[in-house]
Amino acid sequence: MPAEIYHHTLANGMTLLAERMEHVGSAALNFLVPAGCVYDPPDRPGVASILSDLIIRGAGERDSRELMLALDNLGLDRDESVGSMHTRFWGATLARSLPAGLEIYADILRRPHLPDDEMDAVKALALQDLQSIEDEPRQKVLIELRRRHYPPPLGQDRRGTREGIESTTAGDVRHFYQRLFGPAGTILSVAGNIEWEPLRDQVERLFGDWQGGDEPELKLGPQPPGQEHITKETTQTQIGIAYPSVPVGDPDYYAAQGAVNVLSGGMSARLFTEVREKRGLCYAVWASYQTFKDRASVLCYAGTTNERAQETLDVTLGELKRLKEGIAPEEVERVQAGLKSSLIMQQESTSARAGSLASDWYYLGRVRSFDEIEAEINTLSPEKIVGHLHRCPPQDFTIVTLGPKPLKLNDE
Amino acid sequence: MPAEIYHHTLANGMTLLAERMEHVGSAALNFLVPAGCVYDPPDRPGVASILSDLIIRGAGERDSRELMLALDNLGLDRDESVGSMHTRFWGATLARSLPAGLEIYADILRRPHLPDDEMDAVKALALQDLQSIEDEPRQKVLIELRRRHYPPPLGQDRRGTREGIESTTAGDVRHFYQRLFGPAGTILSVAGNIEWEPLRDQVERLFGDWQGGDEPELKLGPQPPGQEHITKETTQTQIGIAYPSVPVGDPDYYAAQGAVNVLSGGMSARLFTEVREKRGLCYAVWASYQTFKDRASVLCYAGTTNERAQETLDVTLGELKRLKEGIAPEEVERVQAGLKSSLIMQQESTSARAGSLASDWYYLGRVRSFDEIEAEINTLSPEKIVGHLHRCPPQDFTIVTLGPKPLKLNDE
Repeated sequence: MPAEIYHHTLANGMTLLAERMEHVGSAALNFLVPAGCVYDPPDRPGVASILSDLIIRGAGERDSRELMLALDNLGLDRDESVGSMHTRFWGATLARSLPAGLEIYADILRRPHLPDDEMDAVKALALQDLQSIEDEPRQKVLIELRRRHYPPPLGQDRRGTREGIESTTAGDVRHFYQRLFGPAGTILSVAGNIEWEPLRDQVERLFGDWQGGDEPELKLGPQPPGQEHITKETTQTQIGIAYPSVPVGDPDYYAAQGAVNVLSGGMSARLFTEVREKRGLCYAVWASYQTFKDRASVLCYAGTTNERAQETLDVTLGELKRLKEGIAPEEVERVQAGLKSSLIMQQESTSARAGSLASDWYYLGRVRSFDEIEAEINTLSPEKIVGHLHRCPPQDFTIVTLGPKPLKLNDE
Repeated sequence: MPAEIYHHTLANGMTLLAERMEHVGSAALNFLVPAGCVYDPPDRPGVASILSDLIIRGAGERDSRELMLALDNLGLDRDESVGSMHTRFWGATLARSLPAGLEIYADILRRPHLPDDEMDAVKALALQDLQSIEDEPRQKVLIELRRRHYPPPLGQDRRGTREGIESTTAGDVRHFYQRLFGPAGTILSVAGNIEWEPLRDQVERLFGDWQGGDEPELKLGPQPPGQEHITKETTQTQIGIAYPSVPVGDPDYYAAQGAVNVLSGGMSARLFTEVREKRGLCYAVWASYQTFKDRASVLCYAGTTNERAQETLDVTLGELKRLKEGIAPEEVERVQAGLKSSLIMQQESTSARAGSLASDWYYLGRVRSFDEIEAEINTLSPEKIVGHLHRCPPQDFTIVTLGPKPLKLNDE
């Protein structure tokens, strides 16, 4: 699986990454701009999300309507999303339409109109997005879990607060844009049937003279208390559990991934088997890994009937604690098979590859090769994973529950 | 884009379809078994879903645990799901693991244990799945919309009813399995880096002597009334609207797809522009096409605040009715660009291709080529779409709303 991967740093600090996949007809692009919701001003939570909607309502020579039509006319499947650290612009289309797409994105990132007269509609949508969480208890418990698990603003949710959205002016949005949109820290990754040299030249022409925007700094507040119950008359109880892990780039990173996959990922994984299959305790149960540059966590979720909620919590916590007592070779073989298979499948998707290029660069400052990742998966063993779990055992749990009645946390 | 597509009908009536994609490392398989939830016995709604869970709890020589481990050990990304007409088994993994995967699926489809002693856990999970809808108002409105829009059992939901699940015995599940699982009407499709002849020989060996299961017949009940409000103290009002369209295979099929894409699909589409962008009325609004063999519909959804619900419903219905008054050439160009781009992207995914092969065969009895679909997209024009809308105008709306207060249906 020889990959043609290219890298170019512009003089202004912006990064361009590309992977040529010559047997496909499509191409995907992915911009990471360091304008995530952790940079929302403390009195304006929600500004990053408002900007991510307003920014495509007209840019360069095109008004809002013309811009949306121009994007749609390229057959772009696309999305703008706000994460903790970045605002992400993703698009995929025919490889031959990629250059025209890049021209439009250069307008969006560098010359957005951010029109005053669209602010009311954008704020109304942001408020509805925020309000809809109240009807989605699963979302709500996971949002609250992250908010309690990390020191602020790391656990902040992109949707902001009612007060933050209502008090935001077009001026606030422009200020946020000016402060955070710039070449420093911005990564553009492209994967698909592309030619490197014309791509690099085009990106130099479109972004080479972009100035401004230092990479922002972040000051963390104190760790919030780690337990919460949200009382709500729901028919199911939602359970969220988080505990610390090691970030990407840590020597234990692959062992940590292995541990999460022993718990969750496949039907023979422990949480699925012990909580769901054997006991029928809950319909959905999973664990997943989430990383920042300097810290990471495992987030677990279970949704169950109110009657079975206490037992579900107890059994789930029991499985988390039991993990470091030992892992069978067959469990590791299963995890290896799953990781290798998804590695191959990611190689076949232009969108997955564009995403991986950018993410590797952000976390590691380099792009991992297929061979490197496969070799790391091959070195996984029960000893290696258990060793990691002794250095970094599941403990110090943040627990958020939502339902009619609080649950007992037996051993805290 | 020359595709190598193969077809073989076994003597017992089972269909095998395959597409060779030589530049990928993965392969996907897709079984459609004519055992959808429309075949649930009237006093046992939910049996198809219970079977889809029980059927993987042991098969052939393997007990439940061994079976799940064997599947996971192949690195299979997989899913079993129950639709209206079919139970679907989908899996994707490395191409070299496909033959081993097929051996296991032959056990699951032909020699499942359907163990008595797992029924309690399976029923508990089915009840939780059913109950969780009460906390998910968006799901609930869409389920109720389909139930009201089609004559029963076509609009039936896979989750069944509490009474149906509670009264189901292992004997009922076995009877449902015996009645519906068989070669007649079953389609296996495979796409990826496969060799046709060994695949065909293996499938003949695994399924050639499978007997039983006539393709079931369906008797439809009377059309339910088309309006309903579900009163619930939610913070948002959910709106579902459905109206008749033409099924796959109809001469107007591509024009009907074009019409839905003028409404929804891309940010310059009408519903998104008129309801969401201009007025900020609702956070989510979309229309999608759903087909059976002999009938089809357009299903629309909008979720909005209670205050804006009436205006959202009025504006959405207005857009649906206005559609046949005319469509601009630029709207059709946008739709064509989007359809062509997703056509190309589907060609690059083994899972999407396996799904399309089976779906084409079920609806049309043949597999459409890339060139055929592209040519049909190229013939779309304002005249063609408007002509279809005059023959089959958006009208006879089924409308289901959910929220604290009923809405006025001004013009019914």
